[in-house]
Amino acid sequence: MPAERASTVSIEELGRRARAAARILANASTSQKNDALLKAADALLAHAAEIQEQNSLDLAAAEAAGMEPGPLDRLRLSDARIEAMAQGLRQVATLPDPIGEVLDGWRRPNGLEISRTRVPLGVVAIIYENRPNVTSDAAGLCLKSGNAALLRGSGSALRSNLAIAKALRKGFAAAGLPEDCLVLVDDATHETAVGVMRLTEYVDCLIPRGGPALIKSVRENATVPVIIDGDGNCHVYVDASADEDMARSIVMNAKTQRTSVCNAAESLVIHADLAETLLPVICADLEAAGVVLVGDEASRIRVASIQPATDDDFGREFLELKMSVAVVSSLDEAIKHINRYGTGHSEAIITTDLDAARRFTREVDAAAVLVNASTRFTDGEEFGFGAEIGISTQKLHARGPMGLRELTTYKYVVWGDGQVRT
Amino acid sequence: MPAERASTVSIEELGRRARAAARILANASTSQKNDALLKAADALLAHAAEIQEQNSLDLAAAEAAGMEPGPLDRLRLSDARIEAMAQGLRQVATLPDPIGEVLDGWRRPNGLEISRTRVPLGVVAIIYENRPNVTSDAAGLCLKSGNAALLRGSGSALRSNLAIAKALRKGFAAAGLPEDCLVLVDDATHETAVGVMRLTEYVDCLIPRGGPALIKSVRENATVPVIIDGDGNCHVYVDASADEDMARSIVMNAKTQRTSVCNAAESLVIHADLAETLLPVICADLEAAGVVLVGDEASRIRVASIQPATDDDFGREFLELKMSVAVVSSLDEAIKHINRYGTGHSEAIITTDLDAARRFTREVDAAAVLVNASTRFTDGEEFGFGAEIGISTQKLHARGPMGLRELTTYKYVVWGDGQVRT
Repeated sequence: MPAERASTVSIEELGRRARAAARILANASTSQKNDALLKAADALLAHAAEIQEQNSLDLAAAEAAGMEPGPLDRLRLSDARIEAMAQGLRQVATLPDPIGEVLDGWRRPNGLEISRTRVPLGVVAIIYENRPNVTSDAAGLCLKSGNAALLRGSGSALRSNLAIAKALRKGFAAAGLPEDCLVLVDDATHETAVGVMRLTEYVDCLIPRGGPALIKSVRENATVPVIIDGDGNCHVYVDASADEDMARSIVMNAKTQRTSVCNAAESLVIHADLAETLLPVICADLEAAGVVLVGDEASRIRVASIQPATDDDFGREFLELKMSVAVVSSLDEAIKHINRYGTGHSEAIITTDLDAARRFTREVDAAAVLVNASTRFTDGEEFGFGAEIGISTQKLHARGPMGLRELTTYKYVVWGDGQVRT
Repeated sequence: MPAERASTVSIEELGRRARAAARILANASTSQKNDALLKAADALLAHAAEIQEQNSLDLAAAEAAGMEPGPLDRLRLSDARIEAMAQGLRQVATLPDPIGEVLDGWRRPNGLEISRTRVPLGVVAIIYENRPNVTSDAAGLCLKSGNAALLRGSGSALRSNLAIAKALRKGFAAAGLPEDCLVLVDDATHETAVGVMRLTEYVDCLIPRGGPALIKSVRENATVPVIIDGDGNCHVYVDASADEDMARSIVMNAKTQRTSVCNAAESLVIHADLAETLLPVICADLEAAGVVLVGDEASRIRVASIQPATDDDFGREFLELKMSVAVVSSLDEAIKHINRYGTGHSEAIITTDLDAARRFTREVDAAAVLVNASTRFTDGEEFGFGAEIGISTQKLHARGPMGLRELTTYKYVVWGDGQVRT
């Protein structure tokens, strides 16, 4: 059975420890943080045998509990995966340190000099499911951005997470930083998840990484500030003016290159002018790749194999070889459709018409709007951030892919020489 | 009695209207938005008699219900206050439009061109208490930043707010923008406040403006993203190296220039080296201005009139002529004290020591850290933002004074020529 309960320490106490570590970490130098990341990578490899031993206990328990092969695979820590975790930490060490950047600054008429300086958030909490590699990835990104990480993984991976955290904490300590730069909640009951969501005094930001049930629970229970890493019901709109080969290639890529990810396309929206000509070709491409199509009346008139779509289908993130199809009579209608059904993640237009491209990018309300490119590019790595902690679908604080910069806030520093207010 | 219930329209329907208006407003030009602000200012003045008539009904009801003179005064809309509201809208029209600013942009090795562009949040909800001028101020700032405002004021000001909103909506419509750029919740029951806090589908950001009870209710009930405009338990730390005249002047200003505001100082922290010399002088200054002092043992040894402080006193935002006093033996101790009791608002150091100044600005965790200046400067106007919607004490999204820029988010716009992911 999963090792749900191991702890006798309260969530408040864990929060307090993370906060104390965060105060020190916030002022650590870049070289000390990089050193800690490299030492943590070494420690992961040095403890690989122990980590795999604990992982095999998690795997056995999960298998006995009837876990499906997919999740079971994501739980497994092969040699290659442990090497990849270590490599990830080394990679984060090479990224620029966001802390200390002066975002802007100015002088006021009374002589006050004001600057806005990038600082860490403080304590970043992450609640995540299954994959134990998140323990290492998240802790590394938090450390580099000067934040203590308060991590609460799932019961299925608890033994693996504990072993990984133990190694990482040793590495951090070897570089002279507090072990509590990573605090793992060593108890994966429902109460500890809710406890983290309500740790107002100690948590500056919570990023839930998981399915709709977790997101719903966070919305209902959280009293701490939250960044929602939500669904991606992404559309590709093929405009009347689209280059047909480009449209075929991008729709195929966006739908089928990897189906289980949030930036995969779930819906094809196509201009009526192309319904007779290009739509059947794209549908044939998709069906040859195993995609099941559901669509509106206008699409079904042109392509007999399209099944009728419900309104619910248009709002759904399938995450599998399934796609909804809608035929629209204008760009306006396309934008309206996408703003209605989209989840504000990534929306693409295929067009050669400058005006259509400009209107689409302005009027579609999403974290990323793409012109003549696959929705699959909305990603921290692809955007050049070097690493990614998630993709925000909310508008507050961070939107779209979140790298190190998105794990920071700012502070106003004001220099005077005795100014008082009159 | 307050006119609590006037509505038959659901909160969801109000949210839907605000969302529809926000879609149009997001793409309005700067000149159209400025025109709407000027026309709204004109409409306020044209409807001044009607607004004052409704305000007198609110005032009579509030007086009959036993409202205190202070709040009663804040509820009153004199000619000068209506003129000030109109002037405020005209002032917002003169501010630069934050929307459309390209924050940064870069090209990826595969040729994709990515830019990050400032866009409106969408629908900004504000729950506020008593003061009807907030209706106009908030609606103006939201409009200029391209956001529809969903406003929920208090029952005591409902008739005044309705009259103000009616005038503003006329002004917006006269400029060709949707009336629903301002949606006032015309029902001030507890249910509508909670309804706004949970309007996940329509509200992109909620800013509560009110006392601790409102903030607590928002933390407990809100499922929408929130910016907390919280308490200011602000400190002035007088370092061992401080210029004594400057210290006296800044402590007096920070404590007494205006006591009821969040950036007023509530606590004096002073280095032990000055406890015998400067502390009695500062305390005499403060007491002469009517300030009641409560302090720790070390301060009371030096100044007999200081009453004993409880731990609770050090954590309290007095908002009146009362101040806590703590004597510390080092800069470290001062920073620790401030990080323990502060609310992350504004913290000042008075010093001539460069190292102390640099350490204080780095290590004190607050929205604003000030060197040799009064805490009273943490303010949108004083920072040069031209206007202020509130002062954030959280770290997510916006920290410190919030002007137009803080009412925006960004969108990634990605230009390609057929890129697909491999």
